Amino acid sequence: MSILTLLTDFGTQDGFIGVMKGVIWGICPDVKIADLSHQIEPQNVLHGAVTLSRVAPFFPAGTVHVAVVDPGVGTARRAIAAQLGTQRYVAPDNGLLTPLIQDAEAEHLPLTFVALDNPEYWLKSITGTFHGRDLFAPVGAHLAAGVPLEELGTLIDDPILLEMPTPEKTDTGWTAHITLIDHFGNIRTNLHVDKVDANTTIRIAGVEIDGLVKSYGHRDVGTLVALGDSGGYLEVAVVNGNAAKRLEVKVGDVINVSA
Amino acid sequence: MSILTLLTDFGTQDGFIGVMKGVIWGICPDVKIADLSHQIEPQNVLHGAVTLSRVAPFFPAGTVHVAVVDPGVGTARRAIAAQLGTQRYVAPDNGLLTPLIQDAEAEHLPLTFVALDNPEYWLKSITGTFHGRDLFAPVGAHLAAGVPLEELGTLIDDPILLEMPTPEKTDTGWTAHITLIDHFGNIRTNLHVDKVDANTTIRIAGVEIDGLVKSYGHRDVGTLVALGDSGGYLEVAVVNGNAAKRLEVKVGDVINVSA
Amino acid sequence: MSILTLLTDFGTQDGFIGVMKGVIWGICPDVKIADLSHQIEPQNVLHGAVTLSRVAPFFPAGTVHVAVVDPGVGTARRAIAAQLGTQRYVAPDNGLLTPLIQDAEAEHLPLTFVALDNPEYWLKSITGTFHGRDLFAPVGAHLAAGVPLEELGTLIDDPILLEMPTPEKTDTGWTAHITLIDHFGNIRTNLHVDKVDANTTIRIAGVEIDGLVKSYGHRDVGTLVALGDSGGYLEVAVVNGNAAKRLEVKVGDVINVSA
Repeated sequence: MSILTLLTDFGTQDGFIGVMKGVIWGICPDVKIADLSHQIEPQNVLHGAVTLSRVAPFFPAGTVHVAVVDPGVGTARRAIAAQLGTQRYVAPDNGLLTPLIQDAEAEHLPLTFVALDNPEYWLKSITGTFHGRDLFAPVGAHLAAGVPLEELGTLIDDPILLEMPTPEKTDTGWTAHITLIDHFGNIRTNLHVDKVDANTTIRIAGVEIDGLVKSYGHRDVGTLVALGDSGGYLEVAVVNGNAAKRLEVKVGDVINVSA
Repeated sequence: MSILTLLTDFGTQDGFIGVMKGVIWGICPDVKIADLSHQIEPQNVLHGAVTLSRVAPFFPAGTVHVAVVDPGVGTARRAIAAQLGTQRYVAPDNGLLTPLIQDAEAEHLPLTFVALDNPEYWLKSITGTFHGRDLFAPVGAHLAAGVPLEELGTLIDDPILLEMPTPEKTDTGWTAHITLIDHFGNIRTNLHVDKVDANTTIRIAGVEIDGLVKSYGHRDVGTLVALGDSGGYLEVAVVNGNAAKRLEVKVGDVINVSA
Repeated sequence: MSILTLLTDFGTQDGFIGVMKGVIWGICPDVKIADLSHQIEPQNVLHGAVTLSRVAPFFPAGTVHVAVVDPGVGTARRAIAAQLGTQRYVAPDNGLLTPLIQDAEAEHLPLTFVALDNPEYWLKSITGTFHGRDLFAPVGAHLAAGVPLEELGTLIDDPILLEMPTPEKTDTGWTAHITLIDHFGNIRTNLHVDKVDANTTIRIAGVEIDGLVKSYGHRDVGTLVALGDSGGYLEVAVVNGNAAKRLEVKVGDVINVSA
């Protein structure tokens, strides 16, 4: 039993994802495929990186994650595969794995990287614009089928990393950043909630929130609340509403936490 | 061979659905997973209830339906599993199964309900905001893998039911309600079409439609028609057009049928 | 191992696709199902035809493609199955397979067509509005399960074909047409890129583009470029941008290529 996931900015209108699945099952007929997201903002590598890092670690050990947000497709940019702890990844070498690599380093997990330069594991014909189908899908399928990571190319130790904002300690607490606005308009941040005292004041977009709640339903509909999200980070939400629209905030904006 | 379906208001952008599939396949590797909808209007339990009831009964016997529209996540609200005739369900106890329960009662099918209070079948760590991943997905997977319903918790007989509008008999016919606007803008109602005479007049949003047609293509493009939908209910549509936009109606609005 | 794909205009909100999968797995439990697109513009057979033809040929031999864009559902229009080279198709007989048939003829592949008039392979009860569930899904599942094409109905040789625009040779080059605007706003045409000289001038919407690039990243962000797409056709794109919005073009518009 093997599982492979797909995360792209390809959308679901044109059949791009379906054809990647056709290629994958042609190589590894028994793999189960889960779509993570195909609504990554076009060419937004940071959006893809944050989304992937929020969900990939929850998959069973050995899962292969194929992630393609790839504005450099068809240029000299490298393609890579990686083993980060128990999970495996296939992606363009453009920083898409940055938070996963940083988390794995922080947890002292074993890390291995390979530059995908062995065309034996690609489709025979490679286009200039769709490496999702021609390179990443077949490499992911071979990995899921049991091909060792090292067979896929040359070991490297210098994957490209994005500059990621990190929370900064202040005199009275933390300055953190919005990293993701989810489907509900919930505001996700880069500050681990275990660093936030339950009675802290959270300041965001000129508004103050007093303390943390355990979940949305502990306050009235329409109330602005702060809580720990499903990945262990500080989240700001409106009960049964859309916090990002209410507060008119966006990814990268600052959130302050103080005693 | 077992089948599990997913219906949520989680959207498809953030990987929430993918990670539920990872959890499910980690527990029950051979289950086939079909997405029913992840575009339920956020926190709209009634929308989820109607959508689920329209499609779940068409699945093979033994299918497990995991439905999560859950504004009360992380509060004291119960989580439940149910056997309704040949289908099985896992959901928050907030009325999401109401029309399915009412239909099963009307057909005198056997009904069994369990409050999901046995944490042996949940993930080890439960967050306050994502019981889809932490509780409903693993419980559904164990059910699909053969764990008996009764093992999952305590038998109950008082699941929460929503107030659902029902068609009312009038002197000359019926007053019914719009229950769903589908992707095409077709207007779905709660009136069984076999109660509507083929030559009846249908009144909706100040417009009259004379009689029923067998399908859309029996009238010219742009014509407003009434017909039986794919679930056996009265439907109002515009041939190759969007009836809900044309008539500016919404769920809950009234539709009158008379001789 | 068999693969079945689904392409429809049904959207993903109402569970229509999920229930088709339930029907399919009830008949052919081991088939793998890939969604191609459910965002075909409602009732737009041409959009469905072009999208399907762009991706279906990349699937493993023997794949069954179930395509349902079907404004004539429930009328006297025929339903058909087809073998075109190594791929198999199930669809309403309304032109949805036109470019696939034309490509197969151009490549002298074997073609077989059957009118689906054997109700033994349909659901027992057929509605007037959802042949996707009642007829196309079960027929596709039986085909994937090994039922020969000829068992499904009567051999025919006159499938309905759409009028498709084709590129016209001019004194200095070609007049071609926009056939698809993809998720990225990239403009796809019906002109094979191998007919375009690398130093040609491309004229579209009053703008000139000089020559072809190999991929997007070879020019600066925001630059309008022409290149070969992933199917071998001429494409016009904006690097990391949306060409269709920039140029305000639509499907059917003309593009001129000249020396």
